[in-house]
Amino acid sequence: MGHKLVSPTEWTEYPQREFAAWFNQLEGLRSPVLVGTQNGAGIHNLAVFSSVTHVGARPPLVGMVFRPLTVERDTYQNLKETGFYTINHIPSAILKAAHQTSAKYPSEKSEFEAVGLTPEASKEAAPYVKEASISMLLQFEEEHLIKANDTIFLVGAVKELRLPEPAVFGNETVDWAELNGLVVSGLYDYHKVDHLKKLAYAKP
Amino acid sequence: MGHKLVSPTEWTEYPQREFAAWFNQLEGLRSPVLVGTQNGAGIHNLAVFSSVTHVGARPPLVGMVFRPLTVERDTYQNLKETGFYTINHIPSAILKAAHQTSAKYPSEKSEFEAVGLTPEASKEAAPYVKEASISMLLQFEEEHLIKANDTIFLVGAVKELRLPEPAVFGNETVDWAELNGLVVSGLYDYHKVDHLKKLAYAKP
Repeated sequence: MGHKLVSPTEWTEYPQREFAAWFNQLEGLRSPVLVGTQNGAGIHNLAVFSSVTHVGARPPLVGMVFRPLTVERDTYQNLKETGFYTINHIPSAILKAAHQTSAKYPSEKSEFEAVGLTPEASKEAAPYVKEASISMLLQFEEEHLIKANDTIFLVGAVKELRLPEPAVFGNETVDWAELNGLVVSGLYDYHKVDHLKKLAYAKP
Repeated sequence: MGHKLVSPTEWTEYPQREFAAWFNQLEGLRSPVLVGTQNGAGIHNLAVFSSVTHVGARPPLVGMVFRPLTVERDTYQNLKETGFYTINHIPSAILKAAHQTSAKYPSEKSEFEAVGLTPEASKEAAPYVKEASISMLLQFEEEHLIKANDTIFLVGAVKELRLPEPAVFGNETVDWAELNGLVVSGLYDYHKVDHLKKLAYAKP
């Protein structure tokens, strides 16, 4: 397969919005998740993200990138106010509802109600998504301002797991195909997954 | 589907290695990539990562998590020394070779040679992987020490793209199925992807 080299002098001439949507796809595929929060008045918020990143397992820590002053504002403000948020994996059956949470609803409107998903109380001030497959409850741990573009890398510590049978500890492999797991390319283009191959710890 | 709640008091009793491998899977699926670097003496290094995160598109910025003093040490030291690295997406045809780069080879050994992949010179001091689908050349931009566990969130600025035909600008959708794109759950469990549905920009 032949390849073409593209330099910044070329891509700066592409229309900005189209370039952004295209570049986001080039970074690859990742699981979309719903992030559940509530504000001080108890109003729920739910928003779709695709920047979940493994930070560590001992203790379990999860990273996410937040864009300041944009669509994710409610999520960020809520989790800073309460200290808690949930990350909920999206099975294909609720894809349309999950994606619809990216619409700009007013802060006083719960996206659960707006899109038809069900909040389930956690032990802290952040709702799980009842229809999700795997969920995690997290507590805000630390954040880092990315100087290059004012985004925020935010790290949370896992405080509880909410698991269906195919994901409980003791299953050597978490079965994402059985869980109807999804991955997304860019902001809009969803894919399903099929198991290909489990490899072993590599030695020289 | 019934769900089970699991608390830290339970999971701290799980064997540590098994817990880490399991928890990593719960965070979801993401594209594995090969990161190409070279040291000051020009010796190439190649290592598989799965923490690529979108940081921004204007300018194009990519984040990755690095574990200090562990298997990724050569990659980190090389990119700090030269300022450059490449991110290369892995088509299924080179999965076994790509995964094999995670073995602990000595610093003076090129993983390209060890696993049978081909370095292709970029315009800076970091090699592309000739067999990759989509590749990017990046320049180190900034790094942030995660206080909770001493990992590093590192951000690079994209300086060149190396693209096959199904990924060039003008294709509204980058076709990851045609590119034989992969996603990985945890460190070992690879999946292929099939296009499911492209959704639209959501409005209330």
